[in-house]
Amino acid sequence: MKEALEGGATSIQLRIKEGSTRYMITVGREIRALTRKYGALYFVDDRLDVALATDADGVQLGPDDMPIDIARELTPNLIIGASVYSLEEALEAESRGAHFLGAGSVYPTPSKPDARVIGLAGLEAIVRSVKVPVVAIGGIGESNIVEVLGTGVVGVAVISAVMGAPNAREATARLRNLIDGFISSR
Amino acid sequence: MKEALEGGATSIQLRIKEGSTRYMITVGREIRALTRKYGALYFVDDRLDVALATDADGVQLGPDDMPIDIARELTPNLIIGASVYSLEEALEAESRGAHFLGAGSVYPTPSKPDARVIGLAGLEAIVRSVKVPVVAIGGIGESNIVEVLGTGVVGVAVISAVMGAPNAREATARLRNLIDGFISSR
Repeated sequence: MKEALEGGATSIQLRIKEGSTRYMITVGREIRALTRKYGALYFVDDRLDVALATDADGVQLGPDDMPIDIARELTPNLIIGASVYSLEEALEAESRGAHFLGAGSVYPTPSKPDARVIGLAGLEAIVRSVKVPVVAIGGIGESNIVEVLGTGVVGVAVISAVMGAPNAREATARLRNLIDGFISSR
Repeated sequence: MKEALEGGATSIQLRIKEGSTRYMITVGREIRALTRKYGALYFVDDRLDVALATDADGVQLGPDDMPIDIARELTPNLIIGASVYSLEEALEAESRGAHFLGAGSVYPTPSKPDARVIGLAGLEAIVRSVKVPVVAIGGIGESNIVEVLGTGVVGVAVISAVMGAPNAREATARLRNLIDGFISSR
C-alpha cells in the first residue's frame, strides 16, 4: 500500500471481507496514517463502523451493503461512494444521495470474477446520465486506462493492476503518468 | 425470536457472523420492530454500523470487536456491553467505559465450543470486582440458572437453552419463571 502511495495513488480503500472488526481497525489505522502522510484519501469498503473508528474520509457501499440514504443520515461527515453495476443502480444510488459512483465492471477482472461487465459503452451511459462524479472500476490497467478516461470518468480504481504487478510502486507510477498525460492533452 | 419474546425474554441480540451488511440490517429491523412491540431491548453483536442503521439499544463487543472506548466515543447514545472471558478482561472493559459486562463462559456450551470456561467461582469474582452490572453467558439453562443468579448477576444470556429447545416460547417461559421465583425469594 505504501508502494502505491509512493507511485502516486490519490486514494486507498480498505477492503477486508474476512477477519475481525479489531483486525480491520488495526489495518485501517495504518492506512489512515500513511494516506495522511502522502496527502491521499482513505476509504473503507462496506464497513461504516470501521470507517468511523479509523477516521476514514469515506465509505464505499455496494448493493449488499448499507443503503446509501441511511449511511448519509448516520454519517453526514463521511464521503459516501456507491458501487454500481448498471445504469439503473447508478440512477438509484444518485437519487439516494451518493456523493460519487464507482461504476463497472468496465472489463472482466480476476478480483471480482462474477461481476457484471458493462464495457466502455455502459460506463459512458452512466457518466452521461448522472450529475455526480464517476470512478471507473473493474479490469483497468495500462493497456486500457486511456480509453476509460475518455468516457469522462474522474478517476479509476484498480486492484489487480497494482497488487498483481511485480512492483506496485512502478505499476502505480505508470498508471499515474498515463492519467497525467491524458489530463494535460485535453 | 418472536417465541422467545412471547416467553418473556427481556432482550434480544442480533448475532450474524456470515452474511452481508444489507442482510443483517434486514433482520435487525425485524428484531427492532418486534422488541418494541414486546417492550424488550435489542442489541447487536459486534457491528456498530448495523446497530446504528437499525436503531438498536446497544452493541455487545468482544475482544475481537471494536475497542470499548472508541465505541463509547463514536456512539454516546448506545448502551455498550462488553463480552469478557476473564477477570482481567472484565476490569479492562470496565475501565474503558463498558456500561455492562457479559461474562463467561460459566459452563461449556455448544454455541461457543472454544470459549474459556470460568465457572461459578470465576463469575462471582467478576461480579465482586466491578461496579457495572454483569450478565452471565455460556451454557446456562434450567438446570443451573438458579445457582448462576446466586452469584449476583443482573441477568443471563442464552442461545442453546432456547434455540435448541423443541419449543422456544415454553423454554423461555420456564427460564423466566425460575428468574422471577429467585427474585421474589430474595
